[in-house]
Amino acid sequence: MSAMQQTLAASLAEIVGPDRVNIDHESLQVFGKDWTKVHEPNPAAIVFPGSIEEVQALVRLANKQGFALVPSGGRTGLSGGAVAANGEVVVAFDRMNQILDFSAVDRQVVCQPGVITEQLQQFADDKGLFYPVDFASSGSSQIGGNVATNAGGIKVIRYGLTRDWVMGMKVVTGTGELLELNHGLVKNATGYDLRHLFIGSEGTLGFIVELTMALATPPKDPTVLVLAVDDLESTMHVLQAFQGALDICAFEFFSEKALRHVMAEKGLQRPFATEGTFYALIEFENTSEAVLESAMSVFEHCVEQGWALDGTMSQNITQARALWRLREDISETISRFTPYKNDISVQVSRVPAFLKEVDNIVTAQYPDFEIIWFGHIGDGNVHLNILKPDALPKEEFFRQCGEVSYDIFEAVKSYGGSVSAEHGVGLLKKPYLQYSRSEGEIACMKALKQVFDPNKVMNPGKIFD
Amino acid sequence: MSAMQQTLAASLAEIVGPDRVNIDHESLQVFGKDWTKVHEPNPAAIVFPGSIEEVQALVRLANKQGFALVPSGGRTGLSGGAVAANGEVVVAFDRMNQILDFSAVDRQVVCQPGVITEQLQQFADDKGLFYPVDFASSGSSQIGGNVATNAGGIKVIRYGLTRDWVMGMKVVTGTGELLELNHGLVKNATGYDLRHLFIGSEGTLGFIVELTMALATPPKDPTVLVLAVDDLESTMHVLQAFQGALDICAFEFFSEKALRHVMAEKGLQRPFATEGTFYALIEFENTSEAVLESAMSVFEHCVEQGWALDGTMSQNITQARALWRLREDISETISRFTPYKNDISVQVSRVPAFLKEVDNIVTAQYPDFEIIWFGHIGDGNVHLNILKPDALPKEEFFRQCGEVSYDIFEAVKSYGGSVSAEHGVGLLKKPYLQYSRSEGEIACMKALKQVFDPNKVMNPGKIFD
Repeated sequence: MSAMQQTLAASLAEIVGPDRVNIDHESLQVFGKDWTKVHEPNPAAIVFPGSIEEVQALVRLANKQGFALVPSGGRTGLSGGAVAANGEVVVAFDRMNQILDFSAVDRQVVCQPGVITEQLQQFADDKGLFYPVDFASSGSSQIGGNVATNAGGIKVIRYGLTRDWVMGMKVVTGTGELLELNHGLVKNATGYDLRHLFIGSEGTLGFIVELTMALATPPKDPTVLVLAVDDLESTMHVLQAFQGALDICAFEFFSEKALRHVMAEKGLQRPFATEGTFYALIEFENTSEAVLESAMSVFEHCVEQGWALDGTMSQNITQARALWRLREDISETISRFTPYKNDISVQVSRVPAFLKEVDNIVTAQYPDFEIIWFGHIGDGNVHLNILKPDALPKEEFFRQCGEVSYDIFEAVKSYGGSVSAEHGVGLLKKPYLQYSRSEGEIACMKALKQVFDPNKVMNPGKIFD
Repeated sequence: MSAMQQTLAASLAEIVGPDRVNIDHESLQVFGKDWTKVHEPNPAAIVFPGSIEEVQALVRLANKQGFALVPSGGRTGLSGGAVAANGEVVVAFDRMNQILDFSAVDRQVVCQPGVITEQLQQFADDKGLFYPVDFASSGSSQIGGNVATNAGGIKVIRYGLTRDWVMGMKVVTGTGELLELNHGLVKNATGYDLRHLFIGSEGTLGFIVELTMALATPPKDPTVLVLAVDDLESTMHVLQAFQGALDICAFEFFSEKALRHVMAEKGLQRPFATEGTFYALIEFENTSEAVLESAMSVFEHCVEQGWALDGTMSQNITQARALWRLREDISETISRFTPYKNDISVQVSRVPAFLKEVDNIVTAQYPDFEIIWFGHIGDGNVHLNILKPDALPKEEFFRQCGEVSYDIFEAVKSYGGSVSAEHGVGLLKKPYLQYSRSEGEIACMKALKQVFDPNKVMNPGKIFD
């Protein structure tokens, strides 16, 4: 450890206390990266503030001494937004993990940023309510990080993104100033809504230090349909038919190739005999006999029209969960093939043509690569996974994927899509930002950062340089 | 007309054509103000651009020649946001009023900013869909103006604000640059969402020149309950009980005083014999027998608990509309009393205490003033209306109301509320902005304006100086 690092640690300890500054190798390794695992962590220190005042003091010190800060939540990000690779000080919110207040009438919870998503979900459940933003990492991700990346997940079609549940927010800007935004109000037409600027800003404007989150009514009897389809155009017809008749909660898809991997790896049964090219998974609330009849009749209509080949509907929650596994276990199943993952989106109606184009791009250049498609087709968000052929070394595989990426992102651009649907930009997607945002937009973003973080202490080098 | 004004008109005519520049007295009067009617209009000219390119050219000219621009939609605003009182050029979007595109799968409509809200609602209806943001002025207001003020209305508790329906947006910033924001994507985690900065910015950052709006599934069999209550605390219990059991679409309230005025003026009948101090109006979708039974059972529970004194439920759409009139006709009914109106909000749970405090403030200073309360209690937005006593001259009445306003806004501040729930700040609420937004926030807002409109050509003097 350098003398400089020790001096820094001593200044940090004056703010948070000596027990709250870690500079041991293991801490630096653990807290210096997220789930991306592509970048080599290299932070100068890890600090664990316990209060808003301590966060403010850390920011003021960073401005004075000229070091950079990286906010760190559950570090479950997949774009390197929480990576500290350049001697930054990591500010971890693990100690600020309390639920501070709850109002049953307002259906609002006041959380510190380090509250784990699952902890909030459980708290809501205990109160007879529901926190609806859910995704694979909810057992580790923190609510502050969810808001900083505007996390999405599997129920966006019904409940929206994290953005839609943030009713109030306290932030410490890059100058150390505390702003209290929106105070839990539903309606507040008093100028620019700064809250929305901080949502999805990936820690580049300031620290989110307190959140007021809204809660919903719990869903009733979630019921799942899985339908086999020949092509994605049919899926669009199926989506439209179901959306016209029911308030659907989820509309997911996966390919036959994905299904085969899941069945083989997890020992699961095919949901029904008929094989499709793709499968649609639809969840709805079975609130009444009328709703169930309506769902059945849309299902039959889809089969009659030739949009769906076959299908099955869950009769109880156990069956519903079993059907969800066919979709939810894909990511874990294919992880042993060291997949090259890409989280992209286009407008829903453009998904079929877009998928074909990307398939063609990859196959033309690398006919041996197996492509696994799955994702949230109901909101236009598809996960492209290219599996590494066994014989190909990892480095060479990723080099080849990196090359084909540019063509994929050209396709994203020509379809008006997003190079990062829900994982954020961080470090990983930074080189490709201009495929989704114009030069003018990027210039505006840089100028906005300048307003809140003039000395560039907040997560520098993330989203843009 | 001055020579300067004629020179200006000639330069404007070079961009939009001579028939699209009005400088006659009547045009200046009509297009120089909104429904606020407090400020004396005094624009230099009115222009009617027909394309995005013309809007860009107008902004570039304004930057070059140093004149100011005021965006003008349906001019139904109630805070003077569209008032041109200082020789500005009014840019009216009446000609850019076309629906450009529609996608049934995406449930999205691409609109020019001058599309009337009702035109969009009708278009959605024709497609078997629903544009859910609705309010009294929807027959005149334009969609561009709705977005610029983030319009709310009577169904916010179910469908959210205008913000929630904006999927894409083209804006011309204060430098004349065209930004195309979000491209109709549901998920797009690529940095700061500039779209949300322009929503509610009241034309101070740039012109909204195209919008992609989402549409919803139409509601089924809207059913209305009106309940009499003794006090607003009971209304909170009623709200919680109904929200726990049903997806309610609206939760409004009005006072017995308001009801009496409406009955007298409109010749309407009392909905049931029992008199309350206040009334709650609840709308829900009668989707099934089970939902109706659930609503009835919550209603009975509210009566048993003593929260509701009595009530009635509509049996058909005609009855539902008749019950809505008790609430919707209030504003028009009391207009002959030259009311002093204030559109304010607090967190829902704080409404009862807040209303009492405001009642006390007004009554202590002006015991003769009659206060009429009504509004969207389910989202915390209440409309305070003080009626002018017949004997008091208008000017003196408004002077006295203006004096008591400061005390009312002190109460708003102490409750963490908003001095403008849904009408925006414009000119009318500008003096009171600091009761809802901190000095730090206002400084940030000014710096953000500087990013998009460095030469202050866009609606200067609105929201803040």
